[in-house]
Amino acid sequence: MEKIAVIGGGSWATALVKILSENKSQVNWWMRNKNDVQHLLNYKHNPRYLSGVQFDLNYVKPDSDLQAVVAASDWVILAVPAAFVQEALAELPKNALQQKVVVSAIKGMIPSQNILITDYVEQQFGVPSSHHLIIAGPCHAEEVALEKQSYLTIGSHDLEKAERFCELLRNRYVKANPLKDLDGVEYCAVMKNIIALACGIARGLNYGDNFQAVLVSNAMFEIERFLDAIMPQHRALTGSAYLGDLLVTAYSQFSRNRTFGNMIGRGYSVKSAQVEMNMVAEGYYAVKSIYELNKKLQVDMPITNAVYLILYERISPGVEFEILKEKLK
Amino acid sequence: MEKIAVIGGGSWATALVKILSENKSQVNWWMRNKNDVQHLLNYKHNPRYLSGVQFDLNYVKPDSDLQAVVAASDWVILAVPAAFVQEALAELPKNALQQKVVVSAIKGMIPSQNILITDYVEQQFGVPSSHHLIIAGPCHAEEVALEKQSYLTIGSHDLEKAERFCELLRNRYVKANPLKDLDGVEYCAVMKNIIALACGIARGLNYGDNFQAVLVSNAMFEIERFLDAIMPQHRALTGSAYLGDLLVTAYSQFSRNRTFGNMIGRGYSVKSAQVEMNMVAEGYYAVKSIYELNKKLQVDMPITNAVYLILYERISPGVEFEILKEKLK
Repeated sequence: MEKIAVIGGGSWATALVKILSENKSQVNWWMRNKNDVQHLLNYKHNPRYLSGVQFDLNYVKPDSDLQAVVAASDWVILAVPAAFVQEALAELPKNALQQKVVVSAIKGMIPSQNILITDYVEQQFGVPSSHHLIIAGPCHAEEVALEKQSYLTIGSHDLEKAERFCELLRNRYVKANPLKDLDGVEYCAVMKNIIALACGIARGLNYGDNFQAVLVSNAMFEIERFLDAIMPQHRALTGSAYLGDLLVTAYSQFSRNRTFGNMIGRGYSVKSAQVEMNMVAEGYYAVKSIYELNKKLQVDMPITNAVYLILYERISPGVEFEILKEKLK
Repeated sequence: MEKIAVIGGGSWATALVKILSENKSQVNWWMRNKNDVQHLLNYKHNPRYLSGVQFDLNYVKPDSDLQAVVAASDWVILAVPAAFVQEALAELPKNALQQKVVVSAIKGMIPSQNILITDYVEQQFGVPSSHHLIIAGPCHAEEVALEKQSYLTIGSHDLEKAERFCELLRNRYVKANPLKDLDGVEYCAVMKNIIALACGIARGLNYGDNFQAVLVSNAMFEIERFLDAIMPQHRALTGSAYLGDLLVTAYSQFSRNRTFGNMIGRGYSVKSAQVEMNMVAEGYYAVKSIYELNKKLQVDMPITNAVYLILYERISPGVEFEILKEKLK
């Protein structure tokens, strides 16, 4: 029986625990909040997210002791928001992850340092890059809860490890495929949230479907240029892990980034949109990291720049999109 | 003043007449129905489509005499459904189009012969391929009527002619760009309707956003394989004229093909879905043409094949999509 730690209690973590535990892996599930752990032990569901999903406690061990959870596991899945990774992992000893395969289910970067989660884990815990996997969509947790047919791509430098993890995920409604690209998949997952945010802003400003299609098309070139600059490798960018992941985020009703962008487009301030949503839109942090990274790279990124200026420099969304629309084609 | 014939009275024809006449081109607008012509002359709007759009009759000359309309024009825009092209052009003399630039705004093929509209016009009227243009989206007519920001791509072998036509289209809410690819853009416009139909079927069968994102990602590879087989050329397939056009059709509420597919997925027969919609879903004809063309080419096209089998061989959508989902990744 595989022993898997899932770090985080959000909707994506909950969906992964469902998939893995139904396949009879032993899931050691860390969440910080002791009341939530107790609720899970008592009522067999997460009180906060996807609470319709019932867990079999023979396979799911909720626990708020991070060291114990990690020590008991061979695979460690990180599924907290990127902005909280440092805080969440702070109590782990430096060598705690050294014999583990670390799987990032996070779509973001370490905000203060502008580095990928996998790079942070490598630097902080000495996990070699061959021991990293990244889970890419297109996959909304909400649809996993409903057991809608979904596809996951596992990016890695090590195809064999990726395939082994795919086997732990595959079931009646989940297909999983390995892909030999760790950084590209991870950067694309970060950038898609920026694009979804831009799509939301456009919708909030009353742009239509014609414009959004052009925005997404142009975004694919923007992502390609950035990846070619930061981590060149041949990539079939229309694949599910890249384009697919972007589409599900940019077009779906479940996308938090799109919803957040929509509120910004309609005139909410960043603060009031965040308070109203009571959820973290990863794209808000991502755009700052990518924008700052790009100061060195100087890649042409009109969409990312527009979103950055709107969120961080208080440029009016209407004015900024008037400029942006001239740059698209 | 440029003289432009627009052949057809549907929503896309109406949107093009709006764009061109507002730019003060002389638009000679052919529609078969004499009552509609008279209505336009009396009330300055098309009674059937986008009827909120008012026309300036100083620039728009509605007429049901096709020969006169074509003879008075230098540019001839074809904007009837593909299935009616032969019938609509039947009364034209063989040499009627020889000095014209023929612009296809049609997203389909001649059904009985499985050839592109541009190829048909070349064969039938001796128009050389350098005199053909194709208008590609992403562009819903309904959004043009609302003056929402839209982008058009003009595909051609002759970039100079394409640029000249772009100049006739550009305005406050329309951007237009030339692209040196006639056949690729035309085939892609045909195939996107098949994919939109497939997306509709998936929705009708209760598949979710995760699945649709994967379906569209896989469709991009299917389109790429087909174009590489039938008309090889380097193409940036994530561009607006290809991916963008597919997105606006596959994801939009305005897409007739998606709506038609949705009804099929929910269990309507082809006949009853057609009666209910009272509109032609181009994808219905397109899938037969592409399927038959591909009998020789033998390109791997699982989505096209699935749609064909459902619409023409009465295979149950549910059963066929169970098979299809295994082929996607």
